[in-house]
Amino acid sequence: MIRLFLVCALAVSAQAAPALMPLPVKVNLSSGALPIDGTFGATTTGVRDARLDAAMRRLSDRLSVQTGIPFLGPAASTLKIDCASKGTDYPTLGEDESYTLDVTPEGATLKAATVDGAIRGLETFAQLVAPAEKGFAAPAVHIEDSPRFPWRGLMIDSSRHWMPLPVILRNIDAMAAVKLNVFHWHLADDQGFRVESKKFPALQAKGSDGHYYTQAELRQVIAYARDRGIRVVPEFDIPGHTLAWLPGVPTIASTAGPFEIGRTWGGFDPIMDPTKEATYKFLDAFIGEMVKIFPDPYFHIGGDEVNPKSWNENPKIKAFMDAHKFNPAALQAYFNQRVSKILTKYHRIMIGWDEVLHPDLPTTTVIQSWRGNKALAEAAAKGHRAILSWGYYLDHLRPASYHYGIDPLGGPAGELPADAQKRILGGEACMWDEYASSETIDSRIWPRMAAIAERFWSPKDVTDVDSMYTRMGVVSRNLEWLGLQHRADFQPMLDRIAADRPDHPLRTLADAVEATGLGTGRGRGVQPRYTQQTPLNRLVDAARPESELVRSMELAAKRMTPEDVAFLREQFTVWAANDARFQPLINGDGLLAELSPLSKDLSALGAAGLKILDAIASSQPLPADWVSQLKTDITRMERPTVEVRMAATRPVKLLLDAATAPKTK
Amino acid sequence: MIRLFLVCALAVSAQAAPALMPLPVKVNLSSGALPIDGTFGATTTGVRDARLDAAMRRLSDRLSVQTGIPFLGPAASTLKIDCASKGTDYPTLGEDESYTLDVTPEGATLKAATVDGAIRGLETFAQLVAPAEKGFAAPAVHIEDSPRFPWRGLMIDSSRHWMPLPVILRNIDAMAAVKLNVFHWHLADDQGFRVESKKFPALQAKGSDGHYYTQAELRQVIAYARDRGIRVVPEFDIPGHTLAWLPGVPTIASTAGPFEIGRTWGGFDPIMDPTKEATYKFLDAFIGEMVKIFPDPYFHIGGDEVNPKSWNENPKIKAFMDAHKFNPAALQAYFNQRVSKILTKYHRIMIGWDEVLHPDLPTTTVIQSWRGNKALAEAAAKGHRAILSWGYYLDHLRPASYHYGIDPLGGPAGELPADAQKRILGGEACMWDEYASSETIDSRIWPRMAAIAERFWSPKDVTDVDSMYTRMGVVSRNLEWLGLQHRADFQPMLDRIAADRPDHPLRTLADAVEATGLGTGRGRGVQPRYTQQTPLNRLVDAARPESELVRSMELAAKRMTPEDVAFLREQFTVWAANDARFQPLINGDGLLAELSPLSKDLSALGAAGLKILDAIASSQPLPADWVSQLKTDITRMERPTVEVRMAATRPVKLLLDAATAPKTK
Repeated sequence: MIRLFLVCALAVSAQAAPALMPLPVKVNLSSGALPIDGTFGATTTGVRDARLDAAMRRLSDRLSVQTGIPFLGPAASTLKIDCASKGTDYPTLGEDESYTLDVTPEGATLKAATVDGAIRGLETFAQLVAPAEKGFAAPAVHIEDSPRFPWRGLMIDSSRHWMPLPVILRNIDAMAAVKLNVFHWHLADDQGFRVESKKFPALQAKGSDGHYYTQAELRQVIAYARDRGIRVVPEFDIPGHTLAWLPGVPTIASTAGPFEIGRTWGGFDPIMDPTKEATYKFLDAFIGEMVKIFPDPYFHIGGDEVNPKSWNENPKIKAFMDAHKFNPAALQAYFNQRVSKILTKYHRIMIGWDEVLHPDLPTTTVIQSWRGNKALAEAAAKGHRAILSWGYYLDHLRPASYHYGIDPLGGPAGELPADAQKRILGGEACMWDEYASSETIDSRIWPRMAAIAERFWSPKDVTDVDSMYTRMGVVSRNLEWLGLQHRADFQPMLDRIAADRPDHPLRTLADAVEATGLGTGRGRGVQPRYTQQTPLNRLVDAARPESELVRSMELAAKRMTPEDVAFLREQFTVWAANDARFQPLINGDGLLAELSPLSKDLSALGAAGLKILDAIASSQPLPADWVSQLKTDITRMERPTVEVRMAATRPVKLLLDAATAPKTK
Repeated sequence: MIRLFLVCALAVSAQAAPALMPLPVKVNLSSGALPIDGTFGATTTGVRDARLDAAMRRLSDRLSVQTGIPFLGPAASTLKIDCASKGTDYPTLGEDESYTLDVTPEGATLKAATVDGAIRGLETFAQLVAPAEKGFAAPAVHIEDSPRFPWRGLMIDSSRHWMPLPVILRNIDAMAAVKLNVFHWHLADDQGFRVESKKFPALQAKGSDGHYYTQAELRQVIAYARDRGIRVVPEFDIPGHTLAWLPGVPTIASTAGPFEIGRTWGGFDPIMDPTKEATYKFLDAFIGEMVKIFPDPYFHIGGDEVNPKSWNENPKIKAFMDAHKFNPAALQAYFNQRVSKILTKYHRIMIGWDEVLHPDLPTTTVIQSWRGNKALAEAAAKGHRAILSWGYYLDHLRPASYHYGIDPLGGPAGELPADAQKRILGGEACMWDEYASSETIDSRIWPRMAAIAERFWSPKDVTDVDSMYTRMGVVSRNLEWLGLQHRADFQPMLDRIAADRPDHPLRTLADAVEATGLGTGRGRGVQPRYTQQTPLNRLVDAARPESELVRSMELAAKRMTPEDVAFLREQFTVWAANDARFQPLINGDGLLAELSPLSKDLSALGAAGLKILDAIASSQPLPADWVSQLKTDITRMERPTVEVRMAATRPVKLLLDAATAPKTK
């Protein structure tokens, strides 16, 4: 099936309007457009289905928000939906998600084999609608589309910081908008156990600070996702990363206790005791309760980063290991086999992180690779189905282009035999929440997730980074109309940092920097160390993972048309003048005070940029010692300050390279 | 009671931090501050009460959003709440809402006679929290506070445009933040019947386009408001403004039908027939159903703008009027008396708009004056209790200062004897929704509503407009953290107007103009006329009722410090250059194309502003013919174009007046 998608020709240049993302397999634009006005309506000519009806209502509601047009009263049959079959009521891995969409000035027709395919096509239709000379319109187009990978996921960590229900629901909306189909929900970890158990209510009573999802809410999320063609795969990470379970069920622990919820990041010593039968009795009962809530056939048991310290130090566990000639890895494999049997009893397929891979584990187990694409290839080579998460860690706050450049079938996986490649089901982006709160998580996921979603859906040769950024910018704005807060939260957070002072200079600074993430500078050297109670209210929390402004300046610095030069000059002028405006605002505001050095750096970069532009304009060389000092300064500025990256160095560096390059005439 | 508030001294200068709004009766700041960190907690020392517990949780949640600090685990007793009594479970007109609040560096104490008073005090405490040198803090302060008027309301029209539940809930949050205590809900009008009736399901089935509040949702709203010390007064506007009722209950109509929901604005001929017993039988049953849902003792029957055309033209009604020697006004009075008896049977007090005032009506009826403060005084003089809405019509989109300048006891009411003045209960702002959708309503209500809330709560002599604007700016930003969309929706709407073009030039234009409202330019001369299905997606919908930028420029033009001059010069430069950037963006986008003349005007004003600043700087006179032409241009620009006001004329005019004033040295 995957091969079929790859041979389809890309019939539209990546830059062409409309901004479709993920880019469909085939897009043939023709002349004319279908007007979208107050009479818009969608009707079905194929099967009737409650999920399809709901999707049509959502399209109408969404277009209403998108266009400002209330759709009321009798509607025309503007969009005819011909859905051949209902497909499965709950979305299924590998289901046919293909569709064709034809738009003419007279009307539109969407054809799909299943409701899930129709749901994907409706999202494409929504992306086609844009302002026109009179009102709104969708361009005439013929689209054929289907996904490259059947498993296209996003993992959200609800443990380390509590993510209230609306956060989850709006992110599912956004997932649907870019045709993702798996919501992997990390529901328990050292820092919080977030699910209501009726069999073991002490789990949430003692492990959640009162912040957990009731069973009714879990069912609501599952129904919400199902309506959007999205599966929900729950993850209960065991036997490690389980500190928040233990206050509620201390008898299954590897140490004596008492236990408290973890408040810092990184692993903790107490984990589950895999040598006690009580552990399996508990897990059987707990999993038995959860499978009644989560209908998905896949059940994620985590299995990552098991710290064997307490196993080695507990005499009973040590004796068990010695008796079975187990090292800790083998003990974990034994644990996994026991859990695997429980899951099989409940008709669930096990999925776990890299570390669960072990010869004793049945090959039905799906492996999620986070440690590298080599691990992915290894799992597939050994007969496991596997999904790639390495390279898709959103919480590292790397640029979208970085993630976009990583292919689930790239690297070692690309060298596997065809049958092993087929076992690579797709990928999942991961959003771990050490440094994200309900206020900031949207901006840590979106819009970059859209670039990854395109990697998972579109043909392999869709790789034009500039096109991706252009379309991602449009998607980013459109997601706001679905309720995503990734752009809306920026200004209120700056307002808060600035207290009631004028925050324009802060905004200028914030637009020129980028937040660091886990492993890329966040928390590095910060004292006291971050805990779950540390406020996430500083510039690093408001700042974006990628600066749109700086990216546009980089493009301008490469092109250097007269308009580009004027734009750069204007922006450098603003930067150069900014610190003089910023410093007087500090006045006792600690959140502003820590930004003082950063603000000075930005103004220095602005002044340097202006000087370089002057030199280029006058074809005069820049003084060598000045250039040398600037390079030293830029190197220093490239190291994060107060946990943010000075993105503004990049266009200055591009110009400096251009101005100091040897003439090659 | 009201006199007591008036004699309290205002102990804090209006400009002083913190930004409290409404300004309390007495605020004594002292040195030092109470740090707000992760250990913050509130405890009660007086009565325990579920509403108070909920209010304390909300404070904690709100501070968490406000500061970015997660409040988890064991909390300190930072804020002690001493509430003397529960008061009533449902908020009551005239209840004691007073409180005192003491903050010291060691802790805070809130004392109140009732839970409603404590709820008001908690809002004040939240307003005290601001960034400090280290983290966040509340300044040491002694506050004594109580409201001037017992009826402080906001009316929202859910009929003309559908307002989904989240819109209502977040506006109730914002109401609580500024200590309003009456949510007046306009639930039915010609354009939509928005309530579920189980006795008469045809009402919502045929009158709502599917957009109505279920009874469970109504109860949810009432409970939500009650938790925040806010009463919910339902309005069912009868006998006019009832076209959306009639498809469901055609037998009570004054004409033959068939009937359809009204789609345009203004009145419609078919109304209720007050001569039929069936009408009263229906109303008795319907009101009997509604009073089971709405616990408030006050029940609003509208009664405004009854168009007697169909009464005069219907032979049976005409015969009835002749037989009783009724003119249409007398017939309406007869109708109101009949309805009044029904309400009395259900233990409800009638409230109606001005037009219901009639000698035959019992003086227990409360009059809501929308036609003028003379009408208010007349009602109070005749023994009715009354509330003022004239002057508080938010949908006219007048500046906050306009509303702030209108006092419920100003004008004729101020000349009434003391006992009649006491019958003036307060005021209500009105948000009619001909030109507001769920997307735009927040920005039409907030932040201006906060200025009106201060008029209703604070002592009469709190009238400093500059102080009000300063504090309103802070409240406006803080409301974002409660989920209000009045600022967040601006940029996404501009993004939509600009399609996927760079929208910085549009933003510059949008920041310099103001939206017109009903009666101030909206819809004037627009063809085809607005209907309920007309998109509310143009600049006039995105633009704010008041331009914050222009206001700051006006202040600068009056002060003219060197910083002010630099600020004005910078802004005029941006305006002058903007049209050259704006015009190329139009390119087939109809929503941008209509703004072309406006954009040219803005750049002309920018160029003129620069020229005037040059003249002032060089003490050179401006050419007389140029001045004359500019004045002509400004007069033209002051008339709305594409339904927006060119606010940018105002600072230019101020400067022009200064530059051309006769020298008086």
